[in-house]
Amino acid sequence: MERIRILVTGGTFDKEYNELPGALFFKSTHAGDMLRLGRCLLDVEIEPLMMIDSLQMTDADRALILARCRDVPEARIVITHGTDTMAETAAVLGPGTQGKTVVLTGAMVPYTFGSSDGMFNLGTALAFVQTLGEGVYVAMNGLCFAWDNVRKDKKKGIFEAVKADG
Amino acid sequence: MERIRILVTGGTFDKEYNELPGALFFKSTHAGDMLRLGRCLLDVEIEPLMMIDSLQMTDADRALILARCRDVPEARIVITHGTDTMAETAAVLGPGTQGKTVVLTGAMVPYTFGSSDGMFNLGTALAFVQTLGEGVYVAMNGLCFAWDNVRKDKKKGIFEAVKADG
Amino acid sequence: MERIRILVTGGTFDKEYNELPGALFFKSTHAGDMLRLGRCLLDVEIEPLMMIDSLQMTDADRALILARCRDVPEARIVITHGTDTMAETAAVLGPGTQGKTVVLTGAMVPYTFGSSDGMFNLGTALAFVQTLGEGVYVAMNGLCFAWDNVRKDKKKGIFEAVKADG
Amino acid sequence: MERIRILVTGGTFDKEYNELPGALFFKSTHAGDMLRLGRCLLDVEIEPLMMIDSLQMTDADRALILARCRDVPEARIVITHGTDTMAETAAVLGPGTQGKTVVLTGAMVPYTFGSSDGMFNLGTALAFVQTLGEGVYVAMNGLCFAWDNVRKDKKKGIFEAVKADG
Repeated sequence: MERIRILVTGGTFDKEYNELPGALFFKSTHAGDMLRLGRCLLDVEIEPLMMIDSLQMTDADRALILARCRDVPEARIVITHGTDTMAETAAVLGPGTQGKTVVLTGAMVPYTFGSSDGMFNLGTALAFVQTLGEGVYVAMNGLCFAWDNVRKDKKKGIFEAVKADG
Repeated sequence: MERIRILVTGGTFDKEYNELPGALFFKSTHAGDMLRLGRCLLDVEIEPLMMIDSLQMTDADRALILARCRDVPEARIVITHGTDTMAETAAVLGPGTQGKTVVLTGAMVPYTFGSSDGMFNLGTALAFVQTLGEGVYVAMNGLCFAWDNVRKDKKKGIFEAVKADG
Repeated sequence: MERIRILVTGGTFDKEYNELPGALFFKSTHAGDMLRLGRCLLDVEIEPLMMIDSLQMTDADRALILARCRDVPEARIVITHGTDTMAETAAVLGPGTQGKTVVLTGAMVPYTFGSSDGMFNLGTALAFVQTLGEGVYVAMNGLCFAWDNVRKDKKKGIFEAVKADG
Repeated sequence: MERIRILVTGGTFDKEYNELPGALFFKSTHAGDMLRLGRCLLDVEIEPLMMIDSLQMTDADRALILARCRDVPEARIVITHGTDTMAETAAVLGPGTQGKTVVLTGAMVPYTFGSSDGMFNLGTALAFVQTLGEGVYVAMNGLCFAWDNVRKDKKKGIFEAVKADG
């Protein structure tokens, strides 16, 4: 079985509720818990790169993600990422990642809140990354978008194709 | 966007807890709720065929599922199914369903129990059905098996390939 | 702070879903997890006596519960119990337990299923046991019934007073 | 059965996650849902007074709460309230509410997040309000404090007595 790498960058996916200040924060990634809950038997290596809100993501952060996509031995990579700038990161990775299949995914609601779309999205991302050819994709809302044909509609909280026939 | 049909047959996926007798039972499918929770924007038609434990599934039930796979207008079909005889149903559909992509999936724990693998599995199934070519498949544990190369290990509660290089 | 003893006897409260046979079973009590989730700071001693469905409870089991109510050093005792025969056990403890406040409680839905009444019922039981005088009570549905004035309406799944002015 | 009034003022108890800005907000109270989940059969009247974070609560807000405690026909009242200034509101109500039993409660984690202490606290509050005599109390952490002997330890996120023998 071909190993898949999951690069963790944070995002709503991994936010938790801190009851003392009553605010959201990052502790550690839930990707492993989610794979166990999904009874996932894929050969997966989880690598936390950063734990940040994607609105805080800098060019340097994106350069690091790109470098890891190039350097890791696996040819199939899933990236968990905040939704707000997921399309921007995809646009950086798209031209720079040859010979690999990279799928970005995330969640609109934190996994720990019980009503999250995270489990569904992670499931789609892990299936897309196994079956799609070389390229960089965004997997959200059950759909899979090419890196150069996706944007987040921030008013609706959904992803959509940019091109008319997307 | 190409429409996907979800044929619902029951299974653990859709079981609920009936508090009066204190037993599990079927009421109606949760597939629609699950798609909403997953913020799924695919064009999906949900068709409940039966609501049964797959150990109770008869040859006539499987003939009905096969007939629906052939007759529905969609070329991409997901079937929610109990895990105990999922491989048997796949073996009936495999030789009889040409020109379509059919993915069977299910869950080890009911969706309503909070700790279910159902959301993850449904996510993988909907991604596999969009990307795989013609054929009948089982999507469980993050993996996708061809209909003639899958069995459930009932002691471990997992699916595995039958052939050594599966 | 006066210590409270929780005697655990099983019941729906503590049932779990075993995914291999697809059936409900008992593993160990969730009373400790529930107190942690409730941020409970009471001085509580949890003592598992048995882990059974209350329909299986025998006279010998009830004699054991009665003996423990008499023998434990605490004067305030909560008993977690299946709902089907909770009133019968209360009727055994009522005449036999002097000088103590004993509150039986349980749940219609297992704690592990997410939509349980267990947390609410445990909260009421721990409050009633602190404030009520000597006697044996059943705490269900937010109400508190004396041991000689309670029955379960098994069709409705609720508890009610037997006497008109109960 | 004596009717109990629940006065809703907001607090963490009723906060929800708004997925578009990714922030917590108030929509409407969950008190009714929680009573249904708890299979509560008490005669309860829910009255939303305000939906605010208790750090934003003003003297005018507290005057309104006090006026409602005096004016409502029920002699037994539960108030859901943010934890940060629960003790301050209790101190306003204590001297001003004669002839009634008033219990303030809340939660450290929103009810909608699945891992909340809200169901437990609401259970304790509804039990305390039925059994305690005239006075104003805070029900948190399984405990019940008199209005003039309680404070929140904000570092630990718990409530405690002020007086040594509290």
